[in-house]
Amino acid sequence: MSDKEQRTEISSLGEFGLIDKITGPFGKTHGDTFLGVGDDAAVIDRGVYFEVVTTDMMLEGIHFDLSYYPLEHLGYKAVSINISDVAAMNATPKQITVNIGLSNRFSVEAVERLYNGVRHACEDFKVDLVGGDTTSSASGLVISVTAIGTVDKDKVALRKNAEKADILCATGDLGGAFVGLQILNREKQEFLANPDMQPKLDSYKFVVKRQLKPVARMDIIHELAEKEVAPKAMIDISDGLASEIMHLAQQSGVGFTIYEDKLPIDKQTYDTAVEFNLDPITCVLNGGEDYELLFTISQEDHKKLEKHPDIHFIGYATDSKQGLNLVTKNNQVFPLKAQGWQHFNP
Amino acid sequence: MSDKEQRTEISSLGEFGLIDKITGPFGKTHGDTFLGVGDDAAVIDRGVYFEVVTTDMMLEGIHFDLSYYPLEHLGYKAVSINISDVAAMNATPKQITVNIGLSNRFSVEAVERLYNGVRHACEDFKVDLVGGDTTSSASGLVISVTAIGTVDKDKVALRKNAEKADILCATGDLGGAFVGLQILNREKQEFLANPDMQPKLDSYKFVVKRQLKPVARMDIIHELAEKEVAPKAMIDISDGLASEIMHLAQQSGVGFTIYEDKLPIDKQTYDTAVEFNLDPITCVLNGGEDYELLFTISQEDHKKLEKHPDIHFIGYATDSKQGLNLVTKNNQVFPLKAQGWQHFNP
Repeated sequence: MSDKEQRTEISSLGEFGLIDKITGPFGKTHGDTFLGVGDDAAVIDRGVYFEVVTTDMMLEGIHFDLSYYPLEHLGYKAVSINISDVAAMNATPKQITVNIGLSNRFSVEAVERLYNGVRHACEDFKVDLVGGDTTSSASGLVISVTAIGTVDKDKVALRKNAEKADILCATGDLGGAFVGLQILNREKQEFLANPDMQPKLDSYKFVVKRQLKPVARMDIIHELAEKEVAPKAMIDISDGLASEIMHLAQQSGVGFTIYEDKLPIDKQTYDTAVEFNLDPITCVLNGGEDYELLFTISQEDHKKLEKHPDIHFIGYATDSKQGLNLVTKNNQVFPLKAQGWQHFNP
Repeated sequence: MSDKEQRTEISSLGEFGLIDKITGPFGKTHGDTFLGVGDDAAVIDRGVYFEVVTTDMMLEGIHFDLSYYPLEHLGYKAVSINISDVAAMNATPKQITVNIGLSNRFSVEAVERLYNGVRHACEDFKVDLVGGDTTSSASGLVISVTAIGTVDKDKVALRKNAEKADILCATGDLGGAFVGLQILNREKQEFLANPDMQPKLDSYKFVVKRQLKPVARMDIIHELAEKEVAPKAMIDISDGLASEIMHLAQQSGVGFTIYEDKLPIDKQTYDTAVEFNLDPITCVLNGGEDYELLFTISQEDHKKLEKHPDIHFIGYATDSKQGLNLVTKNNQVFPLKAQGWQHFNP
C-alpha cells in the first residue's frame, strides 16, 4: 500500500475521530432511517415501533487471547456485548447474526464450543440466531455479530435526551472487567515462565468472570419497564464510565457532576486494583468492558428506583458550561477526563 | 487450545456441513422471525411487509490480496456482495452497517479510500450507512457488512419456491470473476519476479473488473418488478452456478436440467479461460464470485422476459428424481456436480 501524498496515523485521530472523519461524507436517503451512526444502535422506523440495529466485532489478539479465553465464554461475550447496545436503546433484542472467521487450527469441536456459548447467550437474552457467514481466516479468530431489537417509539433512549437536573444512574460494579484482565495477563505470564504451575484464580473469580463473560443488563431494562421508569438518555459502559459520561454530555448539551463515594465498585474489584497498585477509582472511570448501563432519569422517577439494589445514583446533569466534574470523598472537585479505551493507541 | 477428546477437521465437513452442524441446535423463540439460517438472507415479519437481513465478511489473505486490490474497489465489493444477497430475496436494500478491523499499517488516507468505495456503493444501491464498529486488528484487514432491506410479503423469493416445469434463468456473464482472479495472480507473480514490469491488464479489463468490483444486480430486480414478473425461487451466484443450482434443487425438492449452449459467458471470459488452459464451462459452473442472479419463473412469464438482453434461460426444473443434469452442445447428458467455492479445502 503506497500513500505517497500524505500519511496520517490513525492514532492521531483516535477511534471516535476516525469514525467522524470517515462517516461524515455519507448522506441519508431513506425516510425510515430514523438515526444512523452515533448512538449505541441505529434506529429504523417500522411504523408503529422502532427497530434498533447494532454490530460489534471481536478480533483475536485485540479483544481476546485464546491462551486463556474459554471458547464458550467468547461466544457468549460476542453476543452479550451486542445485546448490551440494544439494551442501551431501552429496546428488547430479537434476532442476531454471527459471522466467524476460523483458521485451520480450529477443529469442528472447537467451533461447536464457540457456538455453545452463542447459543447460551441466545437463550439467556431470548434472541434468535437468523444468519451469518462462516469463512476461513488466514490469521486469527474473528467474530462479528449484528443484533436487532425493537422498542416503542416513545420509549427509545437516545444519548441526546439528557436534560439539566436529570439524575445520572449507573448499574453494577464498574472496573471489575479491567482488573480481571490484569489477573488473566499475570497468570498467563506466570504460566509462560513456569508451565507446571496451576493458575491461582479462586480468589479472583468475580473479576475474572466480569472480563470473560459479561452479561448484558437486560434485567435492568425489564425492571425499568415494570417500574414504569423511562430512562431518558442511555449508553452502555463499554469504554469506561468517564468516556460514556462524555458522550451523553456532548450529545445532550449538558454537563455532569458525579460523586466519588457514589461510584459502584465491588470489594473484590477494589482489593484487586490495590493489589496491582492501581487506583480503584481510575479503574472505575477508565477501565472499560463492564457492559453496565449508564442513564439519566427525571427527578420524579428517583423514588421508584431508590430501593433497587443495583441502580446507583452517581450524580446529576448540570448546565453544559459547568462541564464534567468529579467530587471526591473529601469534597474536592476535579474535572473529569475521558480517556476511554483507546485501542488505536498502543 | 486443547482438543484432547476428539479433533474433527473442518475441511472434512466443508462450509455448508459446518453451518448445518453448528446451527442445528438453535431454536426459534420469536414469532416475527419468519426465516432464519438457510437462504440468502434472514426474513423478519414487519406486519405489512418483510424485512430481510444478510451479512458477509471479507478477510485479507482469504478473500482479497491488498498487493493488487485497490481499497476503493474493496470497500465497494464488501457492500455489493451483501446487496446481492438482498437482491436474491427480491427485496430492496435500505440500510447497511460496516465493521472494519485495521492494522496500524493503515493510514487515515487509506481508510478514507476504503470508505469512498463504501460510499459509492451506498450511492449506487441507494442504501444508508447507519452504523458499524471500527477497531484495530493484530493481523489483516477485516470488513464485515450487514445489509437490511424490505420486500412485499407476496414478492419474497425463497430458495424453496421452485416448482417442476419452472424455467431457470441466470443473469450476466458467468466465470468472469474467476478468470479475472487468475489474471491478477499471474500479474502479481510476474511483478514479484520483475518489479520494474508494468502490469498488462488492458486486454483483460472486463474480467479483472468482474473480480475487483462486482455490481449487485439490483437493476434486474427493478426490471422484473417493472415487467410484473415475480421470480419464484432465487439465489445469488456467489459460489459458482452448479453449487447454487444444487441449493435451489435441494430446498425446492426438484431437479434441474441445464443446457451448455445456453450458459452466459462473455467472449473475454471464454478467451481468457482458454489462455489459462481452463475449460470455460467449468469456470462458468464452479468459478464463483460472479454475484449474478439465478432464479426460476413460471412458463407464462417467459414471454415478458424473452427480449431482455441479460436474462438467459439456461434450463428448467424437473422432477427431483431426475437430479441435476447438463446437456452438452453435442446432446450428451452429464450429471452436474456442485463443487462450489470450497475455501475450507486448501
